[in-house]
Amino acid sequence: MKTDLILINNDIVDAEEINVHPFNRGHQFGDGVYEIIPVYNGKALHAEMHMENLFNAMVQIKIPGFYMVEEMVDFTNRLIEAAEVTDGLLYTQVTRGIGPYELDFPEQCEPELIMQAVPLNREELAAKRETGVTLMTVPDERAVKCELNTLNRLPEILAKNKARVGHCYDALFVRDEKITESTDSAFMVVKDEMLWTYPAKLGSIHANATRQLIKEKLAAALDMQVIEKAFTKDFALGADEAFLCGPRCEIMPVVKIDRRAIGDGKPGKLTLQLQDALENYIREQTK
Amino acid sequence: MKTDLILINNDIVDAEEINVHPFNRGHQFGDGVYEIIPVYNGKALHAEMHMENLFNAMVQIKIPGFYMVEEMVDFTNRLIEAAEVTDGLLYTQVTRGIGPYELDFPEQCEPELIMQAVPLNREELAAKRETGVTLMTVPDERAVKCELNTLNRLPEILAKNKARVGHCYDALFVRDEKITESTDSAFMVVKDEMLWTYPAKLGSIHANATRQLIKEKLAAALDMQVIEKAFTKDFALGADEAFLCGPRCEIMPVVKIDRRAIGDGKPGKLTLQLQDALENYIREQTK
Repeated sequence: MKTDLILINNDIVDAEEINVHPFNRGHQFGDGVYEIIPVYNGKALHAEMHMENLFNAMVQIKIPGFYMVEEMVDFTNRLIEAAEVTDGLLYTQVTRGIGPYELDFPEQCEPELIMQAVPLNREELAAKRETGVTLMTVPDERAVKCELNTLNRLPEILAKNKARVGHCYDALFVRDEKITESTDSAFMVVKDEMLWTYPAKLGSIHANATRQLIKEKLAAALDMQVIEKAFTKDFALGADEAFLCGPRCEIMPVVKIDRRAIGDGKPGKLTLQLQDALENYIREQTK
Repeated sequence: MKTDLILINNDIVDAEEINVHPFNRGHQFGDGVYEIIPVYNGKALHAEMHMENLFNAMVQIKIPGFYMVEEMVDFTNRLIEAAEVTDGLLYTQVTRGIGPYELDFPEQCEPELIMQAVPLNREELAAKRETGVTLMTVPDERAVKCELNTLNRLPEILAKNKARVGHCYDALFVRDEKITESTDSAFMVVKDEMLWTYPAKLGSIHANATRQLIKEKLAAALDMQVIEKAFTKDFALGADEAFLCGPRCEIMPVVKIDRRAIGDGKPGKLTLQLQDALENYIREQTK
């Protein structure tokens, strides 16, 4: 995979060659949005849906549209080919463009689109899935509207680093005593053969394609109900199984939170069945 | 003033000529901090204190130090001279530098320092001071630790734009029914000849040099006590006077919040006395 190639607006060039202007509002204010699309077998999964998410986020922060969803999907295909991506992620970001230094939007702006291929070691993820991962809770001090994928990611960066320093796979955010999500994935527990997860409508979790897929397709196929209801860490520790889900980790069993075991401290049976169902689904979609 | 010149790390160059790498973590995550220093008469005001604030913010988000405060102050002087700044602002930002696309800090990173001169029309501010300005309240949905000047500024951008669209000078953030601050300045009210303002120790307001100066020097000189206690919009509407303060607006009388007048709807007497005291102080410091 050629990670040094990027697509900027309509061109594919070497990252070293392009010039992000120092007055780009992405660089000065985090004034932009992003989307991450998984690639399997050289094919972007749900590219159209991800680009619709991106456009929705642009509307929310009032960045004017500049391409159509179909063109964006076409860009992903061009970059996948040029960067020789068979397996990995595509990162896309749109910033409001260049402007004089002031908070309010510039009168005129040309949004800047950048897309790059990001490696993802899925074999390493599969190995972690054998034992499950551990999480560390941290207070969810992010901005309130974190359902949008904005470039304001410092609280997530600091939480991720704290987890790594504490030898955990990821940090688990807790807001008003309820578990929201991890720094880059949704969190679910299995209790009495039902799936519990933080309600999307409360707006304190990112839009997440894997979470949505579980909710709309995979859970039902395994005869499981999805309960969208906020719950505490104690509830999670008393659950039968727990896992993270998202384009970055697919479905990843969680065996400990803050050094305390969930269930028997091993990856849950239904969790692994969901991962199998997800793999089948992906194989079907990207063959 | 030459707004196209920037200081990047140790060099002063034309902004068009330099290359911010697209994988700079400032551009991808808002992973950095900033500081704004007012310049009067070709001299930076409180440059050392501002640079200490910047360094403190860097420590908080774990960006390693790379220059000493004295070197940073020297950079401000060099840029003031090169960009021919007599009156305006100096914007300084430090990002964590370039890294592969992942949330956690890169194993090695070289922080990037950028400094630029920003025009500020102080005559226009003086004209606004004659009539006072109006504010619009918006919910304070920023991240919890907003005492740090980080590059995660989207909630402030959106609030500022909303205020402008609503024909207001700025937005006034309200968190848990208490007024915190505006998008770029602190907020104070005068009641019974005392100054009330949101407590810095609660961490929901930016560090603010003008607020600090009022608290430590100017208020006492006018025989006014400063009460750091959170208060509601109704309390502010029932106050005798109100104003914004900060390096961007100095002291700016506020005459209306959400279309309702404060006091007689005119700039307050003590507010204007504070502005006079500030101007005298600045003149003394930058002569």
